[in-house]
Amino acid sequence: MIGVGINGYGTIGRRVAYGVSVQDDMYISGIVKNTPDYVAKEASRHFNIFVPSEEKIEEFKKSGINVKGTVEDLCKNSDIMVDGTPEGMGEKNLSLYKKFNVRAILEGGEKHSTVDGSFNAYSDFDQMKNKKYVRVVSCNTTALARSLFPIFDNYEISSVNATILRRATDPNDSKKGPINAIEPTMQYPSHHAPDLKTIIPNINIKTTAVKIPTTLMHVHIIDAELPGNVNTEDIKKIWKKYNRLLLINSNEGFKSTAQIMDMAKERSRNRADLYEIAIWKDSININNGILHYLQAVHQESDVIPENIDAIRSMFNIEDKEESIRKTDDSLKIKGGEF
Amino acid sequence: MIGVGINGYGTIGRRVAYGVSVQDDMYISGIVKNTPDYVAKEASRHFNIFVPSEEKIEEFKKSGINVKGTVEDLCKNSDIMVDGTPEGMGEKNLSLYKKFNVRAILEGGEKHSTVDGSFNAYSDFDQMKNKKYVRVVSCNTTALARSLFPIFDNYEISSVNATILRRATDPNDSKKGPINAIEPTMQYPSHHAPDLKTIIPNINIKTTAVKIPTTLMHVHIIDAELPGNVNTEDIKKIWKKYNRLLLINSNEGFKSTAQIMDMAKERSRNRADLYEIAIWKDSININNGILHYLQAVHQESDVIPENIDAIRSMFNIEDKEESIRKTDDSLKIKGGEF
Repeated sequence: MIGVGINGYGTIGRRVAYGVSVQDDMYISGIVKNTPDYVAKEASRHFNIFVPSEEKIEEFKKSGINVKGTVEDLCKNSDIMVDGTPEGMGEKNLSLYKKFNVRAILEGGEKHSTVDGSFNAYSDFDQMKNKKYVRVVSCNTTALARSLFPIFDNYEISSVNATILRRATDPNDSKKGPINAIEPTMQYPSHHAPDLKTIIPNINIKTTAVKIPTTLMHVHIIDAELPGNVNTEDIKKIWKKYNRLLLINSNEGFKSTAQIMDMAKERSRNRADLYEIAIWKDSININNGILHYLQAVHQESDVIPENIDAIRSMFNIEDKEESIRKTDDSLKIKGGEF
Repeated sequence: MIGVGINGYGTIGRRVAYGVSVQDDMYISGIVKNTPDYVAKEASRHFNIFVPSEEKIEEFKKSGINVKGTVEDLCKNSDIMVDGTPEGMGEKNLSLYKKFNVRAILEGGEKHSTVDGSFNAYSDFDQMKNKKYVRVVSCNTTALARSLFPIFDNYEISSVNATILRRATDPNDSKKGPINAIEPTMQYPSHHAPDLKTIIPNINIKTTAVKIPTTLMHVHIIDAELPGNVNTEDIKKIWKKYNRLLLINSNEGFKSTAQIMDMAKERSRNRADLYEIAIWKDSININNGILHYLQAVHQESDVIPENIDAIRSMFNIEDKEESIRKTDDSLKIKGGEF
């Protein structure tokens, strides 16, 4: 059993903690929480709580939360740390993990150059085997890899152009915006294009990113240039083989991200999450060799299965197909046609 | 075992269906769905599906959803119907229920005058015993009753003034607004005040309602005139005895409805619902005999326990305290101090 410590119990950290806790080959050795808020209180019912430094112990005690030690203690008692701290902090924490000679996973907000490699289960599970420090790419990059890698693996894609409509902030945030505005990123390609190349090196992709006032999901508008003889049925047939893609139809009521997340609630999964990337089947078309499609991404949860598979790859305890199957079964991931 | 048919599987109907399905003295005989959309597809994995009329059967079959019959068939095979159809339709459906001599619960969108009585578990469980047609009051009225009845039961409240900040629409809706506007209701008092009197007849209350661009929860700002000798500790002590009230503190991270619904997700309940009314403990104060407090209401789910208790009251199979206890245990409702 692999002991997994979670450093940072935010949107991703808490979901990785849940995901790990339902596997049969790993367990949560503890979680590090910075503030004794309601999230810490709820977490303390399930997990051992650690804090970033000695000074914090008193603050947590005052709030009635029992603390088992500091992040250093957790490093000593874990086989691997998953770093869910805010963007940029993971790189700093890496020296701590190295000091305690504990493996670590950083999340998509960190730089590729700081780690031994970047991870996506479909595109490079085997390449990350036995590595000590691995980064799971961001929610958007994961989503791009999920739908593009299966095509890339079958056909020569000469180029991809993607527009990424990003949710402004996560649902539990009432501070960040934009509340009532559209905020385009001037950088072209946006960081998503080079990020995708860390897990699919030879893909030729350009991306544009725009923040919009919503919290539920991201939406991607994707155009990919394919060989002339490929048709939409070929593409659907390939996608159906990949369990982390869910093909939905707008005329079944999926008019927007609101209904997609509503469907996720109906599926009664932990936190009403949707691990699969939802692709609108009726958006798929090919014109003059350009495949066009729309997909929706639940930014809070799509990277969770990847974190679990990354652990199995880094310890080389399971092969790719079996790891993905175990993860999907335990999280009730069920793609294919809705 | 009481067979419960659900007519209308929307926000409330689907949640009553879940709530009933986890009781040991009732079961779901079937649900009526109007459209063969993704909600119907998900529902068909758990429940028998019925349709409003014969003509619909073919439409559902084409979508691959097996239909057991029409709403009339469901009426014949149920002991009680819970009507979750859109506002105003419940009244029309009442004649159908009467024709088939089946008991029925209407929801808060319907008129009090159409039924034998209106229901709230805390304030009038006993008065609804053995009644055939009962209305469970709306989410907002339920919330007002939850926090005001315990005080009303202990002290003389000379008057109440409440401002109801209403969410514009439910999270699964991408059509209705206001998307970016504040929409006050000119009617004063708003319909909530007379509605509360249907379940607490002698309360003197005025209400103002304002729609705001959010989907998560309603927020109530409440002022109640109390006898001079009551202090805030007296009020908190009373509220703590009522399991469907949850006392939260803003300094534990509950800055807004966003964090309250996030906490509900952490509790891993069905659909990440929050059945309890959340009262901000640090908003409670008494000045010149006026009790002031703020509460937040999860409009999708707070009436679910009331629907279950209403069924037990109407069949007179359990007394008030035991029915509430069974409902609360089965839905994991846990109020008191957070």
